[in-house]
Amino acid sequence: MSELGVTVKKSEDFSEWYTQVILKSELADYAPIQGCIIFRGYSYTIWEKIQDFFNHRIKETGHRNAYFPLFIPESFLRREAEHFEGFVPEVAWITMGGSSELHERLAIRPTSETIIYSMYAKWIRGWRDLPLKLNQWCNIVRWETKATKPFLRTKEFLWQEGHTAHATKEEAEQEVRDILNIYRELMEEHLAIPVLVGRKTEREKFAGALYTDTLEALMPDGKALQLGTSHNLGQNFSTVFDITFIGEDEEEHHVWQTSWGISTRLIGALVMTHGDDNGLVLPPKLAPYQIVVIPIPYKHIKEEVILNKARRVVKELQKNGISVILDDREEYTPGWKFNHWELKGVPLRIEVGPKDVKEGQVVAARRDTLEKVVVKDERLIGTVKKLLTEIQDNLFDRAKRFLNENIRKVETYQEFKRVLDQKGGFIKACWCSDPECEEGIKEETGATIRLIPFQKEEVFSGCVYCGREANKVVYFARAY
Amino acid sequence: MSELGVTVKKSEDFSEWYTQVILKSELADYAPIQGCIIFRGYSYTIWEKIQDFFNHRIKETGHRNAYFPLFIPESFLRREAEHFEGFVPEVAWITMGGSSELHERLAIRPTSETIIYSMYAKWIRGWRDLPLKLNQWCNIVRWETKATKPFLRTKEFLWQEGHTAHATKEEAEQEVRDILNIYRELMEEHLAIPVLVGRKTEREKFAGALYTDTLEALMPDGKALQLGTSHNLGQNFSTVFDITFIGEDEEEHHVWQTSWGISTRLIGALVMTHGDDNGLVLPPKLAPYQIVVIPIPYKHIKEEVILNKARRVVKELQKNGISVILDDREEYTPGWKFNHWELKGVPLRIEVGPKDVKEGQVVAARRDTLEKVVVKDERLIGTVKKLLTEIQDNLFDRAKRFLNENIRKVETYQEFKRVLDQKGGFIKACWCSDPECEEGIKEETGATIRLIPFQKEEVFSGCVYCGREANKVVYFARAY
Repeated sequence: MSELGVTVKKSEDFSEWYTQVILKSELADYAPIQGCIIFRGYSYTIWEKIQDFFNHRIKETGHRNAYFPLFIPESFLRREAEHFEGFVPEVAWITMGGSSELHERLAIRPTSETIIYSMYAKWIRGWRDLPLKLNQWCNIVRWETKATKPFLRTKEFLWQEGHTAHATKEEAEQEVRDILNIYRELMEEHLAIPVLVGRKTEREKFAGALYTDTLEALMPDGKALQLGTSHNLGQNFSTVFDITFIGEDEEEHHVWQTSWGISTRLIGALVMTHGDDNGLVLPPKLAPYQIVVIPIPYKHIKEEVILNKARRVVKELQKNGISVILDDREEYTPGWKFNHWELKGVPLRIEVGPKDVKEGQVVAARRDTLEKVVVKDERLIGTVKKLLTEIQDNLFDRAKRFLNENIRKVETYQEFKRVLDQKGGFIKACWCSDPECEEGIKEETGATIRLIPFQKEEVFSGCVYCGREANKVVYFARAY
Repeated sequence: MSELGVTVKKSEDFSEWYTQVILKSELADYAPIQGCIIFRGYSYTIWEKIQDFFNHRIKETGHRNAYFPLFIPESFLRREAEHFEGFVPEVAWITMGGSSELHERLAIRPTSETIIYSMYAKWIRGWRDLPLKLNQWCNIVRWETKATKPFLRTKEFLWQEGHTAHATKEEAEQEVRDILNIYRELMEEHLAIPVLVGRKTEREKFAGALYTDTLEALMPDGKALQLGTSHNLGQNFSTVFDITFIGEDEEEHHVWQTSWGISTRLIGALVMTHGDDNGLVLPPKLAPYQIVVIPIPYKHIKEEVILNKARRVVKELQKNGISVILDDREEYTPGWKFNHWELKGVPLRIEVGPKDVKEGQVVAARRDTLEKVVVKDERLIGTVKKLLTEIQDNLFDRAKRFLNENIRKVETYQEFKRVLDQKGGFIKACWCSDPECEEGIKEETGATIRLIPFQKEEVFSGCVYCGREANKVVYFARAY
């Protein structure tokens, strides 16, 4: 088993632990193309659950899925200058089709604003065509040269990108907020990952946006991870791509636009946030299997009796909408199976042994606390549902506590650097809004402003960098 | 309305009709990259319904979805010689990442056997790892130079590709058959498109397969359309990629493999098979909206009364799991709306006018027959469900009749050419199994052997091409 299990502690070598958990739990594997991974069945099932939730929410609010081309002509990318500058260093280029050179090289989409908006310009004519609210689930390519980190930094990943067009600025602002709320619900209530929500600075916003709102989580190594962003594009793209509509006032106007995305990096966040020295720990709402049932044969009692009870338990759970797997493989011992399913992070294990058959009970073992409880047969469903809810809540509470304990207020740059190096986490500090201070801090410490909180906080010192008068409180961190 | 509607008859200019229906019903649009289309919300929703059905069926039979890289190193594609020859003329190549030339150019996947099997070689060790049954939904690129035809011939399209590995030949054969049955169920019971099922000849099989089984439909212009294929790859790829396992006999064996796929061309088949001069006709099981409810205001009665009834009807339908849209837009006339939703192929229209309010009824208009029936309020759900089933069945029966009427038996090459040119459709003929006869017919007439039927049919003449003794009956057609 030792070769199967994770061989380093999360607290001792976080990065190695992360990679081992992902490979050994069979979430992902490295592909034979440098910088790419395979999303194996176990992680893809989590992604499908994320898709199900998000599709449900966006469809009930009038969005629709569509699919736009993988290829973007270079000239399209170039149209919005900031946008082009932001993405061009990471673009993969197609230059040949079959045995012919292409006239214009084609980018593999690093994001799809330009190709989608060239169509919006064609489709949108009058106010009746608005709002236009489309989303697509697709693969994205960014030619990363930094070291590969599964789910967090790979040349290809999966995401959704929503693209909407509205008649007014207010509607676009509302859309940005609505999506942010759906994202927050997904992250906090399904992934059990608490997030800080706020606005990016000019320096950190999406290339081409008016402003970018963000959801940021804190990983156990003290680094921030951006989990999702929702951009108000204003009229930047609609001006460049000439997306206009005749309003009810019979005048021509440029549309207001938003775009927003979350990606498979959410799976990386899940691993880091909840995992422990035994491997993955998955929140019940997203776990491919919420429960594993393991029969424990013993010489004094007929194997068939135990197996039959295990099968009855599985059926009853399934009938109640719980996703469950029976591990009745004869070639592995119960101990091996315990380790195996702990590594895979299944939230609840149910053991059925000789004593359980005799006493009309089963034993349930929680993955989050590793505690065991005896559950009487007649209370199986009620207790199991309660336990799954408790596990979901406990994972969130634990992560929330960690987040709260790792937001530190500092007043001086000295303190800033000390806290950053010794503790990491989010640093709450005052800022004068000068991009040069932001830039200076980044260059000297590697920390960036993760967000300006929506709820304006009282300024409590001068600018943490230059000492001049500050006008906002912001959250800094080193980030993935 | 005339500019909105389809301006040619299906029977007069099939190709132009097809394009107009697709563009005007907003299923798809041409992208600004030659050879690419946008899958707009309306077609993507159909695709999602296809995915839902297929995912359900493959998951209940032990398959799982996963995701493999978009990129395939050229050396991988080259490993299986036939496979490489088959695909290389249509490959798009990445040669640059950011501003650097790549050492080895990367193919954008034209199909994923090689990249997936390089991983199977790593993952499969012993008999316990088998069967391995993965599927992926993804985009595929083939650098087509022939004229673009939305859903049927584009440089990029969407599909699913299943890839399985088994311990025995028999299991692989069974998998090929099982998938074929799921495909047939999808096509006949959901898309309402009847298919012929059988085996491809050596010449027509998938490049690298032992054999290919296929499902073929007949389009109204008399050309065959291959809707799905299921390949037994034998041990061809497992030998080349060295995918071996230690069996229960403790010996090393190569695995037996299958791969199988359906693509967004199914949507093209839907359009061609069921559409009419008024536009799309969608089978209820796959229609984004099964019913449109249209209030018909009239001066003698308060608009609010009619609208309220329309809303009640919508709610009741929704409560019964029927997907319905209320078109209560004030800026369009009922007549405009009738045409609009007919163009979009909504299976059933429900009209609510002043008379209907007074008489406690609604009027239902079938899209397939354009017939209207009065439905009493108290029988709404029952009648609507019955009508939807009837529409689904009628579309299938109509297409089945067309298929049956267009399978013609011929004994001589003279007759073969005459039938092909005058009638098209499937031609049932006898063949001596010599690939040179097959090749000769293809070169001279453009017709190919679409399939060798599973149910062996009695030979009724000499080889239709060379006149020598024939040993099988096969189905020829010109095809998309």
